[in-house]
Amino acid sequence: MSNAVQFQVEAVCPWSGARAGRLTTPHGVVETPVFMPVGTNGALKAVTFDQVRNCDAQIVLSNSYHLYLRPGHELIKEAGGIHRFIGWEKPILTDSGGFQVFSLDMLRRITEEGVFFKDHRGGREHFIGPAKSMVIQNAIGADIIMAFDDCVKNPATYDEALASMERTHRWLQTCVEHHSRADDQALFGIVQGSMYEDLRERSVAEVTTHDLPGFAIGGVAVGEDRSTIERIVFFTTPLLPASKPRYLMGVGTPWDISYAIRCGVDMFDCVSPTRLARHGAAFTRQGRISLRTSKYGKDFTPLEDDCDCFTCKMHTKAYLHHLFKQKEQAGGTLLSIHNIHHLIRQAVECREAILSGTFKQYFEEQCALHESDQLARTAAQQS
Amino acid sequence: MSNAVQFQVEAVCPWSGARAGRLTTPHGVVETPVFMPVGTNGALKAVTFDQVRNCDAQIVLSNSYHLYLRPGHELIKEAGGIHRFIGWEKPILTDSGGFQVFSLDMLRRITEEGVFFKDHRGGREHFIGPAKSMVIQNAIGADIIMAFDDCVKNPATYDEALASMERTHRWLQTCVEHHSRADDQALFGIVQGSMYEDLRERSVAEVTTHDLPGFAIGGVAVGEDRSTIERIVFFTTPLLPASKPRYLMGVGTPWDISYAIRCGVDMFDCVSPTRLARHGAAFTRQGRISLRTSKYGKDFTPLEDDCDCFTCKMHTKAYLHHLFKQKEQAGGTLLSIHNIHHLIRQAVECREAILSGTFKQYFEEQCALHESDQLARTAAQQS
Repeated sequence: MSNAVQFQVEAVCPWSGARAGRLTTPHGVVETPVFMPVGTNGALKAVTFDQVRNCDAQIVLSNSYHLYLRPGHELIKEAGGIHRFIGWEKPILTDSGGFQVFSLDMLRRITEEGVFFKDHRGGREHFIGPAKSMVIQNAIGADIIMAFDDCVKNPATYDEALASMERTHRWLQTCVEHHSRADDQALFGIVQGSMYEDLRERSVAEVTTHDLPGFAIGGVAVGEDRSTIERIVFFTTPLLPASKPRYLMGVGTPWDISYAIRCGVDMFDCVSPTRLARHGAAFTRQGRISLRTSKYGKDFTPLEDDCDCFTCKMHTKAYLHHLFKQKEQAGGTLLSIHNIHHLIRQAVECREAILSGTFKQYFEEQCALHESDQLARTAAQQS
Repeated sequence: MSNAVQFQVEAVCPWSGARAGRLTTPHGVVETPVFMPVGTNGALKAVTFDQVRNCDAQIVLSNSYHLYLRPGHELIKEAGGIHRFIGWEKPILTDSGGFQVFSLDMLRRITEEGVFFKDHRGGREHFIGPAKSMVIQNAIGADIIMAFDDCVKNPATYDEALASMERTHRWLQTCVEHHSRADDQALFGIVQGSMYEDLRERSVAEVTTHDLPGFAIGGVAVGEDRSTIERIVFFTTPLLPASKPRYLMGVGTPWDISYAIRCGVDMFDCVSPTRLARHGAAFTRQGRISLRTSKYGKDFTPLEDDCDCFTCKMHTKAYLHHLFKQKEQAGGTLLSIHNIHHLIRQAVECREAILSGTFKQYFEEQCALHESDQLARTAAQQS
């Protein structure tokens, strides 16, 4: 239906089904697989958009739930849309608010039309449903907008998961009917079904009856363990149409990204790089490290020798350790830059391996790193 | 004595004595007058060094008191010096710690050798005196280092000011004797004397008996009112040797800078741009504004139309207002960038006016702006 975005698969790994592609949006081309940094309130925690740009970010995500509450979608429309309001002229994706109203423990009442909830800060009662979410996201004006879904937390019983999934499907129909800017905003449908494979299969079948420009896997990383996440992603991804971009919502870590790409996912978002950074943790090829520990006090080497992010080019672990000891905000900023760059690079490396036909080897190396990292963590916990 | 820095006066305003000059240091040339952003702990609050560089900063200041406590001057020496440790290859100035130990209310005991004080965070007792300050600053390795002085708070009685000044003079002698890197670090002497003109005159006479590469006016903006600050700067600056750089410590606002340049000062530092930014205040040519106020909620123009800082090029007041309402750290970062850039530009504009022979006119415009800003503030306070 919509020609707001076009997706072209450039290469597929015959061993895994991992894909490299190009997603053309009204604000430019996104090469996939791609990691999308998250700017919840229209800003990334501790990082400015020029720093995000210097991390080679191609697209960022923002939350329509937060933007609806403040400054309000109408104000963003008045400002000329989200790109002008936040000062980022590349592609933007907004989520629908479904995840927030179901997960932030402020849920009041669910009706067939949507959800009444209390503002997580003010206490005022608000309402968002599928039709309202389209009004909000159409006003905000991102390149890609998401269907308003019912995102059930795990563990969920089969009946809870079924009811939530069916509501998600009915709401998708409403979203499709109320989306008023299909020419310049691409609406992605969201597959639910919790950890039940038959529900995931039914959800894919139902959601893909709509000829949408992209599809997402929702309801993942909402309480279930890592192996369950991996099983669901492994099972669900190949069911989605091969010709459309596939977006795994809210995932993840460097390993999660490699694994999901191996399953055929094209797009990811997660707050982990900035959240971990504020707590002093950095992604490295050898696993996650904490810059708070005194072992880095005299380590005059960068976080990673071969990393070309600003932080690694200019600063040592000893300096970063000093900033965290001094509670200097610059510490969180510099680690955020590194972590965002790390996840973006992870996706780019996967892309290059897929294009050059070496993805199987690349993925096996990632598996070995992941395994030794897991062993090291287990050992650290036991010692 | 030292050839660590060379200063060349390029032009003097015949009306005021305002000067444009070039200060050549081991890490590059600084064009004066110059505003020096302050990175207390070896980092600027909320701003990375690439952002400081993009504000056209030529030189930054750091505090040897803070660096001595953490991470320690020996560690910085081991890292290869302050430039390498913090990742800033342009000139750096460190202050001596005198101001901190006298002003942070942790003073324990003054002896002829120095000051015993409690760490402002840990509670451990420390000692810094003129000899020790040279050891610390020589280890840190900034291009310009400051004498360890006794900085008395205002209001001070004449006798207090006299005793403090005489101690400063004795300590300067000790600093000169213990400074071990005169070839690559320039030691600046500091004039004290509180608000007493005869003491300031005596202090200049005594401090300049040492053939030092630069001189500073200390003990200003330490409790006295604005007109007293202006009187002291107006009186003291022309007494300092015309061939050496003159540094006014800890001052100030856009107006303070214009005024001090008019008196013949060449260098300034102040935490005001970053401190005010964190509280939502921005310097503009029309005076200081608060981005917290709701009047900017729908103002889709930049802080200043003709400002070429990153913040003004990319963002509107409405967006900045939104960030402060949302308590997003990026708000403080973006305002810090603007405020630092504003003070740096202020000094550059003065320099250009001095070089082109139009400083009198430029300064009169600044006076008119300052006067209307003061009137507006008074009116705002009375309404």
